[in-house]
Amino acid sequence: MYLEKINSPADLRKLPPEALQVLSEEIRDVIIDTVSQNGGHLGANLGTVELILALHYVFDVPADSLIFDVGHQAYTHKIITGRKEFFRTLRQQDGCAGFPHPNESKFDSTVSGHAGTAISTALGIAIANIRSNKANKAIAIVGDGSLNCGISLEGLNHARDGRKNLIIILNDNKMSISRNVGGMARHLNRIISGGFYNRFKTGAKRLMFRLPRHKTLHKFIRRIEDLIKYLVLPGAIFEELGIRYIGPIDGHSLPDLLHHLNNIKSQQSGPILLHVITEKGHGYEHAKKNPAKYHGVPGFCKATGEIASSGKSTFSGAFGEAVCALAKSHPEVHAITAAMTDGTGLSEFSRLYWNRFHDVGIAEEHAVVFAAGLAAAGERPVCAIYATFMQRALDCIYHDVVLARLPVIFALDRAGAVEDGPTHHGIYDLGFLRALPGLTIIAPRSEAELKAMFDYAYTLARPVVIRYPRGGSATPIDAPVAAPEEGKAEIVREGSGPVIWAMGVETETALKVSELLNLDCCVISARFIAPFDAALAQKLAVNRVTISIEDHVLSGGLSSALDDALADCPHGRVLHFGWPSDRPIPHGKVSELRQKFGLTAQAIADQASANIANS
Amino acid sequence: MYLEKINSPADLRKLPPEALQVLSEEIRDVIIDTVSQNGGHLGANLGTVELILALHYVFDVPADSLIFDVGHQAYTHKIITGRKEFFRTLRQQDGCAGFPHPNESKFDSTVSGHAGTAISTALGIAIANIRSNKANKAIAIVGDGSLNCGISLEGLNHARDGRKNLIIILNDNKMSISRNVGGMARHLNRIISGGFYNRFKTGAKRLMFRLPRHKTLHKFIRRIEDLIKYLVLPGAIFEELGIRYIGPIDGHSLPDLLHHLNNIKSQQSGPILLHVITEKGHGYEHAKKNPAKYHGVPGFCKATGEIASSGKSTFSGAFGEAVCALAKSHPEVHAITAAMTDGTGLSEFSRLYWNRFHDVGIAEEHAVVFAAGLAAAGERPVCAIYATFMQRALDCIYHDVVLARLPVIFALDRAGAVEDGPTHHGIYDLGFLRALPGLTIIAPRSEAELKAMFDYAYTLARPVVIRYPRGGSATPIDAPVAAPEEGKAEIVREGSGPVIWAMGVETETALKVSELLNLDCCVISARFIAPFDAALAQKLAVNRVTISIEDHVLSGGLSSALDDALADCPHGRVLHFGWPSDRPIPHGKVSELRQKFGLTAQAIADQASANIANS
Repeated sequence: MYLEKINSPADLRKLPPEALQVLSEEIRDVIIDTVSQNGGHLGANLGTVELILALHYVFDVPADSLIFDVGHQAYTHKIITGRKEFFRTLRQQDGCAGFPHPNESKFDSTVSGHAGTAISTALGIAIANIRSNKANKAIAIVGDGSLNCGISLEGLNHARDGRKNLIIILNDNKMSISRNVGGMARHLNRIISGGFYNRFKTGAKRLMFRLPRHKTLHKFIRRIEDLIKYLVLPGAIFEELGIRYIGPIDGHSLPDLLHHLNNIKSQQSGPILLHVITEKGHGYEHAKKNPAKYHGVPGFCKATGEIASSGKSTFSGAFGEAVCALAKSHPEVHAITAAMTDGTGLSEFSRLYWNRFHDVGIAEEHAVVFAAGLAAAGERPVCAIYATFMQRALDCIYHDVVLARLPVIFALDRAGAVEDGPTHHGIYDLGFLRALPGLTIIAPRSEAELKAMFDYAYTLARPVVIRYPRGGSATPIDAPVAAPEEGKAEIVREGSGPVIWAMGVETETALKVSELLNLDCCVISARFIAPFDAALAQKLAVNRVTISIEDHVLSGGLSSALDDALADCPHGRVLHFGWPSDRPIPHGKVSELRQKFGLTAQAIADQASANIANS
Repeated sequence: MYLEKINSPADLRKLPPEALQVLSEEIRDVIIDTVSQNGGHLGANLGTVELILALHYVFDVPADSLIFDVGHQAYTHKIITGRKEFFRTLRQQDGCAGFPHPNESKFDSTVSGHAGTAISTALGIAIANIRSNKANKAIAIVGDGSLNCGISLEGLNHARDGRKNLIIILNDNKMSISRNVGGMARHLNRIISGGFYNRFKTGAKRLMFRLPRHKTLHKFIRRIEDLIKYLVLPGAIFEELGIRYIGPIDGHSLPDLLHHLNNIKSQQSGPILLHVITEKGHGYEHAKKNPAKYHGVPGFCKATGEIASSGKSTFSGAFGEAVCALAKSHPEVHAITAAMTDGTGLSEFSRLYWNRFHDVGIAEEHAVVFAAGLAAAGERPVCAIYATFMQRALDCIYHDVVLARLPVIFALDRAGAVEDGPTHHGIYDLGFLRALPGLTIIAPRSEAELKAMFDYAYTLARPVVIRYPRGGSATPIDAPVAAPEEGKAEIVREGSGPVIWAMGVETETALKVSELLNLDCCVISARFIAPFDAALAQKLAVNRVTISIEDHVLSGGLSSALDDALADCPHGRVLHFGWPSDRPIPHGKVSELRQKFGLTAQAIADQASANIANS
């Protein structure tokens, strides 16, 4: 066992290079073992074991900086930077985070979680090193999927200023989360296949044999060959942007990796992009065969590869069914995803209505503006993006959709706290969205209500956001749903006691709180966050306690909608329950996070009754 | 006069092609005349007269769609689409908007104002046309400066799906607003200079003369030439992304434009990018000579070109001085702008500290993430971006800066309503920003306070937003400034009557309202929007009227901060004054907008006293 001796990259560098291959297998075992138990990102981490070992072997981190784009491929990095025991607590509360974070280790340069930021970050570090006359390198590790992202492309445009201090490792597995799409993917594939250049080379050699031995001519042909090699084939896009392109090389061959990285380290010019070909799930047959399925997993059986599945209905599933049903009868309905076909429940749609299905890659801004274009031409696009990633496109929602009042439906999946931690919680968007003129925001409390609200949103024919969490509700799928009415909340339980407002699936929590309090509470599902049912809130608040429960921070969401509604009206006490906005919400099981932050039904009931007693 | 006969593009198409040159001069006169009086975007519009005439001559708008990126170059389009009289009211209240908007004309396909959205929008329209079997074209007109923007690049990556229905006109004047920067600009310059290809061509010809007359060889060299022409030189980046590149052509030559556009119209494959070289300010000597100065002007003397200047101090100017002063003593201070060197007051900094000055082009997301990288490496970046454009990078502020608690100072210039209209008002960002953990948000009420707050923000060494409006305050620059204290508001006028809270420069409005009300008001400058001085608000609100005044929508800003603070505390009436969030705020002089929306001191005093009397 080499791994037991590795407590820092310095230990790694004491090994002979031949030992790295064995070590990489040991690390793979740890990753498969841990992820099978705790869940996590499997494919990407199995694909980058050799690459990360080679980087740490050649460079001196943290003097040199490693910046992981997205950060879901950093497990090997964590394991060899003093966290191999801690790594066993992956994704558990107070345990090892699934993503890099400087608070966890000095070896983690920056926070990551969202795609496309590594090149820009690394460029910043590189320029800082130049400014302070340090020779240290800033190394961005970027997947080919992230290269579609506008920020990556903006970063590439500016990359030249990073000079030899900036190194970009393009970790190309021909995948983002689903199969990679678009012109950049095509460019990379052309490089890899290298068809033209190879054909030219063979042809040129043959010609040189057949031609008279003319020195100028042979020299000329060789110069053309160099020229084509340099300019045309590998990485023309990068070269044109002023970035030296090297590759493609085999990302599972340690000798190749070490050779090229050592070369790059000693280069006196740059920036350099090294194109590394890796395989998602390398070394674990099940993950190799089905990379999309094993991208992020909740835990699985190591031997059979079987992934734990709840089999329960989900909001994503209900959304997928609703949009398919609508598309069947409405040929102008399109569905758009930003590299999350499976996650957003659009797999079936992508098969049935492939010519109205658009996976634009990790490009949320383009997804929204593209939807605006479709809608401007009379189509009816549905844009499904996780709430946390929609933060990327808030301006586009305003500028391109809301201002022109275009009929785009935004489906914000994974709204609310999630296991993945601060970078992924979908709990910050409502403050901005709620301020936009004429944007309707709906939070359904069950899968059945999601479907009804979706159909209703279609009839509105203007900008609508529907927000719903990961997973499902406890409400039966065939439970009756009250007809939606613009800006009207639904009274779920009549009562003369405290009034409990809930957003979306938190209505279930509210009903439990009502039972626990046993004070004849009135329970209300807000349904519309905008326009908000201020009239009902004002009517019910007189001489009564108003309580709110939401899976959003206590700023900008339901609590602020209520505060704004009640500010200039007579009202009793007002108690809000949601995530605090004064500190980041960490990772961990959502049930544990709720416990920690006092957001279980029991905790809410306890706090509410203590407060009511005090007033 | 041809122009008097032109009431629609159909009239234009009745003219012989030769007439277009004369018409273009007539239109130039109208533009120069109107902008000299009303202010507006001069350079970009003078540069695109021939291009837009040619497009309307060849294509059939609105069946074909013209999509203007940014939209500040659409004056010619407006003039010939039935708005030539209306155009005389440019930028006046209820007059012609400076940007396209479907509400103004069926010839305007979409809203624009922010950069980088035209390719994505046009692609959406193109795919809608494909879906409904229409042959119509969607034509995006994009400046070279906008091509840096991540959304443009995301759009280019997906453009291939638009097929022959998508046409991209690259309007290249080697400018964004300041001189264009980065790898893409370099790529375009290489295309235009065409140096290498021309040298190769000459060399190859010379060689062919010197070589034996060998058919295979000559054929081979000619094929290489084609190859280089096709792949290497013009537009390798676009070609690699699957977009046919044509150009560069002279954008002021109507015969060239008509020839190429007619060709493109009949092409059976696509998408096509036509590279058009234009000159900012073409036809008006003053604007040609100084394109940055005449990009957007407040009005000027037609004969001398002299631009009206108030000569008064401004927040932008004070910011520029503050950051220069800091940089002088602190070598780790950097300044970052996204193509707004002059606008943000950074011209002096860019001259004095050029190696710590970074104009990243129109790439706000990259600007913020790049700042995060600098800060992660120990530098102290200051990122100056207009409030409306910062909406593009809200996620980056959270994900890349706030979560890692990096010491980046964000200077949000042009916060509040501006003349340019709905796309440009900086009045929507606070709802999101206020919810972010540990982000300090400061609104100084004068230039002097801005400087003090800036120095204070530096000492905090964590993420800080400083927001201030266009123009200046009435407070003298040497007025004493109370020492900043984290999360503490400043009582500007003690009083036992109503409590008036104001954000930033609205403190001046609040003082006037206090005088008008004459009720011994207590006037408070909030100073910190986050952390907000909730304790003071709660203390003062008991049995008193609380009034708030802010240059932000009434959702997410000062009003929501107050409502959240007071919700569970005893308080008197609460009256908020800010922009409504239920409809877009139009363009027009800010003083007129304030009048219209009841936000002058007099209007606020009237409304407040009526309300107080009623309660």
